[in-house]
Amino acid sequence: MPATERSPRIAVIGGGQLARMMAQPAIALGVPLRLLAEAEGVSAAQVIPDQQVGDYRDLATLRAVTEGCSVVTFDHEHVPTEHLRALAADGVVAHPGPEALVHAQDKVVMREAMARLGAPQPRWAVVGSAADVEAFGLPCVLKTSRGGYDGKGVWFARTADDVAEALATAEQTGVRLLAEELVDFRRELSALVARAPSGQAAAYPVVATLQVDGICREVVAPAPDLDPELAAGAQELALRIAGELGVTGILAVELFEAVDADGTPRVLVNELAMRPHNTGHWTQDGAVTSQFENHLRAALDLPLGSPEPRARWTVMVNILGGDNPDVGRLYDGYPHALARDPRLRVHLYGKDLRPGRKVGHVNTFGDDLEDCLERARHAAAWFRGDLGNHSE
Amino acid sequence: MPATERSPRIAVIGGGQLARMMAQPAIALGVPLRLLAEAEGVSAAQVIPDQQVGDYRDLATLRAVTEGCSVVTFDHEHVPTEHLRALAADGVVAHPGPEALVHAQDKVVMREAMARLGAPQPRWAVVGSAADVEAFGLPCVLKTSRGGYDGKGVWFARTADDVAEALATAEQTGVRLLAEELVDFRRELSALVARAPSGQAAAYPVVATLQVDGICREVVAPAPDLDPELAAGAQELALRIAGELGVTGILAVELFEAVDADGTPRVLVNELAMRPHNTGHWTQDGAVTSQFENHLRAALDLPLGSPEPRARWTVMVNILGGDNPDVGRLYDGYPHALARDPRLRVHLYGKDLRPGRKVGHVNTFGDDLEDCLERARHAAAWFRGDLGNHSE
Repeated sequence: MPATERSPRIAVIGGGQLARMMAQPAIALGVPLRLLAEAEGVSAAQVIPDQQVGDYRDLATLRAVTEGCSVVTFDHEHVPTEHLRALAADGVVAHPGPEALVHAQDKVVMREAMARLGAPQPRWAVVGSAADVEAFGLPCVLKTSRGGYDGKGVWFARTADDVAEALATAEQTGVRLLAEELVDFRRELSALVARAPSGQAAAYPVVATLQVDGICREVVAPAPDLDPELAAGAQELALRIAGELGVTGILAVELFEAVDADGTPRVLVNELAMRPHNTGHWTQDGAVTSQFENHLRAALDLPLGSPEPRARWTVMVNILGGDNPDVGRLYDGYPHALARDPRLRVHLYGKDLRPGRKVGHVNTFGDDLEDCLERARHAAAWFRGDLGNHSE
Repeated sequence: MPATERSPRIAVIGGGQLARMMAQPAIALGVPLRLLAEAEGVSAAQVIPDQQVGDYRDLATLRAVTEGCSVVTFDHEHVPTEHLRALAADGVVAHPGPEALVHAQDKVVMREAMARLGAPQPRWAVVGSAADVEAFGLPCVLKTSRGGYDGKGVWFARTADDVAEALATAEQTGVRLLAEELVDFRRELSALVARAPSGQAAAYPVVATLQVDGICREVVAPAPDLDPELAAGAQELALRIAGELGVTGILAVELFEAVDADGTPRVLVNELAMRPHNTGHWTQDGAVTSQFENHLRAALDLPLGSPEPRARWTVMVNILGGDNPDVGRLYDGYPHALARDPRLRVHLYGKDLRPGRKVGHVNTFGDDLEDCLERARHAAAWFRGDLGNHSE
C-alpha cells in the first residue's frame, strides 16, 4: 500500500495561491492534499494532482471532495459555516472550525467579539441609514460586514454620496454595514500566529505592512523600530484572540499602530484572517517554519514548528499587475531579476499579469534593511514590467 | 491563456524522490513540470499533476512525454544517451546532455575522462579476468562500469571468490569491470556545483559525508575542519569537471579525502553524479538556493541562485528503513519528533518503510555542530522506528 494511503489526507477548499503554496510543505511532510478548485488550471490546480472542480457553496460538492479526508482547510474564508457543521457531523473536521471562521467572515461578528474580549479596536457601530452614519460622524470608514476583500466593500466616506453608495451596496448584497472611526495610524502591523487544536500556539514576529488601496504591497519582518513592549503585547493579543475564538491554523491579526497625544504607541485591531496570509509570505524564506507548513501542521494537530526568523530582516514585496495588460509573460522577468540578485527568492502563482492582480511575490533577506527593500522593490517592479523588461 | 502555457515546461524522467523534490521549487518559480513515472503513485507522481507512466528506455515514450517541453531532465542517470540524441534532433534539449551524462553512466568512461583532465583519482584499470585482477593487486575495489548504485555493483575484493563473483556479474550483465585501488581515506567529501548552458556555475560548500555499505547516511555542511585550500581546490576541481564535460544542471563530485605520508591532505575523485544528489539535500534548508532549484534554473538556462550557506552548520541524516518491516507508517513519527525539536526540517518521500530503503531525510541547522548532529540523528532514528515510536 503506498504511503499516501496511510497518512491523513487534507482537503483544501479553493484553488488560489494560498493553496498552491500549501503544496510545498505538504510535499516535504509527505502529506497528501486534495483540492477543490473553482475551475480547471487555476493556481493550485496546476500543482496538486488530486483535485476536483466545483462550487464550494454546494454541500454535496464539499462532501465529495472531503471523502476519505480527516480534515479540511481553506484557501479563502468563504465556505458557508453551516456546511462545515454538516461536514463535522460526517466526521470531517474543519480547521479553522465554523465557530472561529465566522469571525473572519463577518466584520460585525468580529467587532462584537473584540469588544467582548476587551481587545483594542477603533470605535465602531452598525449603521442602517444615512442618519446612523451622520450620528456616528463623518469622515469614517464604511465596510460591508461580509464579502469584502483587497479593498472591495470598503469606503473612506467623506460625503453623503460616499455614504449613499455604501448603503446601496450593503442593501443590494443583503449584508450589514459597519462604520469605523478613521484611525490616524502611524503604520499598519500584522501579528501572525499558528494555533493547533491541542492549544499549542506559535507567534511569528510582528511585521510592518504597507497597504495601497487596501491591497498589501510590502511587508518588513520584523517591524522596524517597533517598541518591544508593543510588539510583545501585539503577539499576546493575537495569541489570546486565537485561543478565545478557538482558531485552528493560521490567524493573522491586522493592526493599526496609532500614537496617542502623549506619544504612547498602541495597537488597534483592524481585521482578522484565518488562513495563511499575505503578511506572512515572508516566512517562506525568512522563518524556520513557514506559515504554510504551520497551517498544515495545525490542521493535523501536529506540534508546530519554530516561528523564529532566520535573518535580521526579511522583506516581501508583492508582484501586482500594472496598467498595461500586454506586458507579456512573467517568465520574461527572470533573466534580469535573477542575474541582478542571486539571493532573490521568487514565488510566482501561475497566473497571467492583469491590472491590479496579485501574481506573485519576492522575498529578500539580510542584515541591511535598505538593501533588502531596494532589491525586493526592484525585482517586483521588473516582473511587473514597470522597468521595461517586457519591451521586446 | 493560463500562465502555464506561456512558461517553458520541463519534462522530468523518473518518478523518485529527486523529481518529487524538484516539484517544490518548480511551484515557486511558476514553471510547470511534466513527469514520466515508472508506475502510478510513485514518489514524484504523488505531487506532479502533469504525468505519464511509462518506460524511460522506450524512445516513443520519451517523445510522448517531452512533447511541448523545451527541455528534459532526470531523476536518475539511466536514460539511454542515443535516445537523448534523438530527442535533441526533435528540438528537446536534455540537461545534462548525452555527452556529459555518459560520464555518470559509465565508470570506465568517467575514469578515462578524469585521467584526461588530470583530475586526482585512485589507481584504476579495466579488468577482464582473474589474472588481470591479480596483476592489479588485491585487495582492491571492483565495480561494474554501468548499472551500480547505492552499493550495488561494488565489491571490496579480498579473495579469489570475491573476484570470481564480480567477474561473473559483469559478464552476466554484459558490462566492463573496473578495478580501483583501495584508498586509505580519512573521510568522504562531496563537491556539488550547478552549471547552466550559458557556462555560469555556482559551487556549494564542500560537505563531509558518512557512507555505510555504499549508502549515504549523513552529511555535514560545510565539512568540519577541512583545510581551506583543499576545500577551494575541491570546488575548483568540481567546477572544472563540470565545464570540461559540459555538464548542465547539478554535478556532484564524490571525493575521498586521503592523507599522504607527510600528513598533507588531498582529494581523489570517487564518483560523479549528474542530478540533484543526496549529499546536496542539506541545501533545501541550509543554502540560499537549494540544489533542486538550481538544477531547474540550469535546465532553463536562467541565472543560478546563490549557493551560500544560511547557517554555520547544516546536518542532513537519511531516514532508512530498518530491519523490522512492520514498523508501521512514517507519519507516526511526527508527534514526538516535531515536539522534541521545533526547528527540525523533515522531508518524507511518500514511501513506505522497507529495510534499507531511503524514505526521507531530516535537516537541522544551527551554530552548534554537536547539537545539530544529535537532533538529526535522533529524529532519523525515531522515524525509522529504532527508538520505539512504532510500538503501539
